[in-house]
Amino acid sequence: MGYCLMKQLQVLLVAGTHGNEVNSIWLFDEWNKSPFLINTHGIKTCKVIGNPEARKAGKRYIYQDLNRSFQKESFLSLSPSNFESIRANELVNLYGAEGKTPCQIALDFHTTTASMGSCLVVYGRRDADLALASLIQNQLGLPIYLHESDQKQTGFLVETWPCGLVVEIGPIGQGLLSSRVISKTKLILETLMQQIHQVKKLNFFFPEKLIIHRHIKSIDFPRDDRGNIDGLVHSLRQSKDWHELKKDDELFSKMNGETIRFEEDQSYIPVFINEASYAEKNIAMSLTKRELWDFKKEWKKSLIDLVHQK
Amino acid sequence: MGYCLMKQLQVLLVAGTHGNEVNSIWLFDEWNKSPFLINTHGIKTCKVIGNPEARKAGKRYIYQDLNRSFQKESFLSLSPSNFESIRANELVNLYGAEGKTPCQIALDFHTTTASMGSCLVVYGRRDADLALASLIQNQLGLPIYLHESDQKQTGFLVETWPCGLVVEIGPIGQGLLSSRVISKTKLILETLMQQIHQVKKLNFFFPEKLIIHRHIKSIDFPRDDRGNIDGLVHSLRQSKDWHELKKDDELFSKMNGETIRFEEDQSYIPVFINEASYAEKNIAMSLTKRELWDFKKEWKKSLIDLVHQK
Repeated sequence: MGYCLMKQLQVLLVAGTHGNEVNSIWLFDEWNKSPFLINTHGIKTCKVIGNPEARKAGKRYIYQDLNRSFQKESFLSLSPSNFESIRANELVNLYGAEGKTPCQIALDFHTTTASMGSCLVVYGRRDADLALASLIQNQLGLPIYLHESDQKQTGFLVETWPCGLVVEIGPIGQGLLSSRVISKTKLILETLMQQIHQVKKLNFFFPEKLIIHRHIKSIDFPRDDRGNIDGLVHSLRQSKDWHELKKDDELFSKMNGETIRFEEDQSYIPVFINEASYAEKNIAMSLTKRELWDFKKEWKKSLIDLVHQK
Repeated sequence: MGYCLMKQLQVLLVAGTHGNEVNSIWLFDEWNKSPFLINTHGIKTCKVIGNPEARKAGKRYIYQDLNRSFQKESFLSLSPSNFESIRANELVNLYGAEGKTPCQIALDFHTTTASMGSCLVVYGRRDADLALASLIQNQLGLPIYLHESDQKQTGFLVETWPCGLVVEIGPIGQGLLSSRVISKTKLILETLMQQIHQVKKLNFFFPEKLIIHRHIKSIDFPRDDRGNIDGLVHSLRQSKDWHELKKDDELFSKMNGETIRFEEDQSYIPVFINEASYAEKNIAMSLTKRELWDFKKEWKKSLIDLVHQK
């Protein structure tokens, strides 16, 4: 095949990009104590805690969401109080593709209070991301949420690396350790490393089709005149991530007994239903379209080229 | 019967004693907007947010746990940085039995990440507390956790009032609003007010027996040499609050595959299994004994006297 190694592949593994998503942080701590805990299949990794200050504070972030802070323009105007922009800059300088310890792939481990099970999030339609996500969907059957066309939400960590995926596992409360979540995190991490190893060995199996949940838009909670939430996710909608939402379905309930129903004529697949940290972002849930995509040869080529540093 | 009203009964209702237990806070906010939302059965109430600063910060507390800050000695040495001791002092001065707006009963609404369903917590064996808890257990069947003989945990809010109960509802993540939890909070709050009203009318029904889960001790997570948690609640123990724990049952699991089993010869009923905020208190779960107590006439007399201000 003639792929030659120019420099060695390194994978950046990030836990605690949000300081109150503690399960991957705990797994990384255990891994530091027992270096053979995770099988990385011989692939070199750099593992970091994304937001160590937020971790100490037991909060999602200190000044602003680190996982919205990877904006090129924000690196130009760093204020000392903006801890997360400084940290984003630091992570890029250390582990970016052109950094001191260059990493080509970033894997970012998150949890959610939504009942989404385990899933992958890809940002935009980058070939290498879709190739790697295809390999994991083929191995573990995880749903893929394609986040795109969302002007309000940008600056995600993984976008700054040539290839990057977010792993989301839920439901789990903020700050709560769970053996169930830890086991899932370990399984997905090891499967990712195994599949990257297979790509390195040029011994892989890409599926012909990929199921994608394509982001369309997010919807907010009902709010009163002062902007406070005055309706909750309806009990029939709560925990129904990945289940079809169609016209007249119950969406929110108010304390006066009123039920707010979904009014659009078309149906969607909702995700991140009642994710605790999204209320401040005016997101009660995000709506997606479930699509079956043909696997494209360019995706495969892009990932192979990246892993083989062409 | 000859009970006479010396002064009017007032009940203190507290939401957000912990700033990240947001469901009762939200319910109180809605109630402020719609005064007829909650039926208090004509009983006068004072409702407050216990820790408004912690609420703003989205944290359990600012400096120390408010619900461990009602210590008589701590009121003598208030430091300006100790926000919670100052707040505890303030609440007592405002709403204590001898305060500006005196309340005789305090009801404190909490949530937990443990799968405890709804339950009542009483602190020590005060007659009026046990009488009121009996009325609620008789109406709603809620389990009662009797917290006592715990030198490490003192200074609870409700202990500072002549009668007081904590309502705990779970599982729910910190900072997460849930229509299920809100409905339960409303039901229990209204049942409490209804039963206090019945006592005021001297038209009540006390049960002959009371089921009590009596606190024996708490156990910590396994920890490494540096004091960090190095074992998680076992997947077979997680969410098994109120289920018997007996010798050789799985308790914790470590990442090296080791299972730590329960070694005592006697069995217990565990509660607060994996409550997120208790890890810092070195509590992985608390162990209780389930007991059937005879209802005592003194309990009834104490509650009646209190409600009728004798």
